[in-house]
Amino acid sequence: MRKVAIVGTGHTEFGSELPKTEIELFCEAATEAMAECDLGPQQVQALFCGNVFGDFAEGQGMIQSFIANELGFHNVPATRFEGACASATVAIRDAFMWVASGFYDIVVVGGTEKATAMGTPLATRTFAMGAEAKYEFAPGLTFPGFFALLAHLYASTYNVPLEKLREQMSLVSVQSHYYGTKNPHAQFRHKEITPEQVSGGFTVASPLRLLDCCPFSDGAAVLVLASEEAAKKLTDKPVYITGLGQASSPRLSAQAPYLPRIRARELSVKQAYEMAGVTPQDIDICELHDCFSIASIIAAENLGFAQAGEGGRLWENGDTKIGGKIPINISGGLKAKGHPIGATGASQTCEIVRQLRGDLADSGRQVAGARTGLVDTLGGDGIIANLVLQAGW
Amino acid sequence: MRKVAIVGTGHTEFGSELPKTEIELFCEAATEAMAECDLGPQQVQALFCGNVFGDFAEGQGMIQSFIANELGFHNVPATRFEGACASATVAIRDAFMWVASGFYDIVVVGGTEKATAMGTPLATRTFAMGAEAKYEFAPGLTFPGFFALLAHLYASTYNVPLEKLREQMSLVSVQSHYYGTKNPHAQFRHKEITPEQVSGGFTVASPLRLLDCCPFSDGAAVLVLASEEAAKKLTDKPVYITGLGQASSPRLSAQAPYLPRIRARELSVKQAYEMAGVTPQDIDICELHDCFSIASIIAAENLGFAQAGEGGRLWENGDTKIGGKIPINISGGLKAKGHPIGATGASQTCEIVRQLRGDLADSGRQVAGARTGLVDTLGGDGIIANLVLQAGW
Repeated sequence: MRKVAIVGTGHTEFGSELPKTEIELFCEAATEAMAECDLGPQQVQALFCGNVFGDFAEGQGMIQSFIANELGFHNVPATRFEGACASATVAIRDAFMWVASGFYDIVVVGGTEKATAMGTPLATRTFAMGAEAKYEFAPGLTFPGFFALLAHLYASTYNVPLEKLREQMSLVSVQSHYYGTKNPHAQFRHKEITPEQVSGGFTVASPLRLLDCCPFSDGAAVLVLASEEAAKKLTDKPVYITGLGQASSPRLSAQAPYLPRIRARELSVKQAYEMAGVTPQDIDICELHDCFSIASIIAAENLGFAQAGEGGRLWENGDTKIGGKIPINISGGLKAKGHPIGATGASQTCEIVRQLRGDLADSGRQVAGARTGLVDTLGGDGIIANLVLQAGW
Repeated sequence: MRKVAIVGTGHTEFGSELPKTEIELFCEAATEAMAECDLGPQQVQALFCGNVFGDFAEGQGMIQSFIANELGFHNVPATRFEGACASATVAIRDAFMWVASGFYDIVVVGGTEKATAMGTPLATRTFAMGAEAKYEFAPGLTFPGFFALLAHLYASTYNVPLEKLREQMSLVSVQSHYYGTKNPHAQFRHKEITPEQVSGGFTVASPLRLLDCCPFSDGAAVLVLASEEAAKKLTDKPVYITGLGQASSPRLSAQAPYLPRIRARELSVKQAYEMAGVTPQDIDICELHDCFSIASIIAAENLGFAQAGEGGRLWENGDTKIGGKIPINISGGLKAKGHPIGATGASQTCEIVRQLRGDLADSGRQVAGARTGLVDTLGGDGIIANLVLQAGW
């Protein structure tokens, strides 16, 4: 298979009630990504799009066809992927294959979502559709409850006192909001918070407080993928996708013997590491799926950055900051940057590419000298997708 | 790229208000497909699933993850595709690439839908989400209106008197219902109709009458795909996917200069024919997207079986019957077999594979000696996907 590079990145503002449609948001990000590598619409051979709830938010299904044609990619194959919050990462992995196989040379892939267009009650309801409808949603389990249960199980399994875990979780959210103030695209770009504000916030699902939870968000992010040969003509700084992984889980109750470890993530990231020929120690920067603060701690362990039960110490020790052992969610993460679900994986990937290229020097969030990055996205109950990205110059 | 074969097929009953969930329907069809080639769940490396409205019908998003794990494909990558009514054909085309590229040897791909679980008013509303929400649905255009407009445009463009076109459209539906009585999976497996019943039925959107329109349906269909090497161990009668095509359209009004020809279909089928090295004259049997009777006539022309304006004559002359020049929709088509939208492309593919293998001798609908078949699926406004299938023994 051929090498595949990311040669262009585009990212809209993330926020609440953005005054554009999902199609318009995708087109805005795609236009930026294509301008970055001076690509014309006629050069694009296919479109891949992550989107979860366009039908609920805007009465719009099959969004990919309209996006392709609005962008002037006349009549190209356009494919939509729904894997809950992992939709865009799944789309990127799939787009990779169409280029790696030699079928296409240049494709556009991204995600778009307007989660706030539904209003909070419907958003909560539709998000819960990423859990199992018959056995999980029916008895009342939604995702805040899912992760609250995981937090309790985590504390008891690893003998971490709940108060200690509470402190660690607060530090996760505090760090994300700190870096969010350095990201002009972040939904909470003006909002630093303190540990006391997190631990003293109102309880969503014990032990999770409001500021343990990422927001509902609107936004889009888009990438241009190209074969090695095509990439060399489009950019001096190709970022190669050197590893990919994907795995799926049964409903939460059927995962019980393995929890709080997420087996699908461990399997997925193993695929990605092996394909890239790297280990967790080789990762210079990571964007991981922090839908809730406890999710960050568990993810950091699953990805190999800490032993089971010791993920929270990474944040306590400052290991996850710029200059630390493994900088995590320097974009602000889902927590502060925002979480427009169908766009999130493309946003994470965009951030890693810009970090590896050294684009963020003026932002106060550049991880100097990063050459290898990891993307981690969790969808629903869940689907996990991982990408290893490496600087190619 | 490697050759890719279909080695197993499964198909549930199609009908209204089936007493199984979408997950259960997919699993039923997958179990049949895997039994056909004596395949165990541990041999399956990935799942690809077409599904459009699981969230509306059952409050179930991310259906693919639960399907994979219910079937015992523990933790494999599972990907959902939404391309309106073309979802499953898009999924098959994508699954093909993962095997052709050498990444996987054996995968399962199919589609599932419970369109009737929503009730007719919501089904009509959600189906319209395959059109453009901002400019098409808002003024009131739904798909019966879309195809009614096409019928009028067709009649005026090609100087076919509307009465003549009305007769031809009736013959399309009569033939589909006739063959539907030969298909034990068909939704209308006991319902032959007459031309007078079609033309005398109540008007849905002039000139379309009730029996010009396919029904809402529930059901699933599933295929096992394998590399050439793996296929030889699994079956004596591999059916190879030798050609594939996919293309997308802008909203209907933006297609106006080309209509009533569907440019996306002409581009898509050209890709498929060229890849397979065949012409329309080489096709022994075709399943095409007859969501409305006029859609069949237009599709037959776009696919190269008749000149523009002359598609209806194929049905008048009996060319589309068994023994005719180009047998079309011998399964009963969407019209009589049913149209569980996310499953339709997999159902069409299943039918062609069984025809090429000569499985249907006892049904009264076998096309004797067929070696090359064509699948044609239209999604929404629309996305078109085509597959050329060829007997490999």
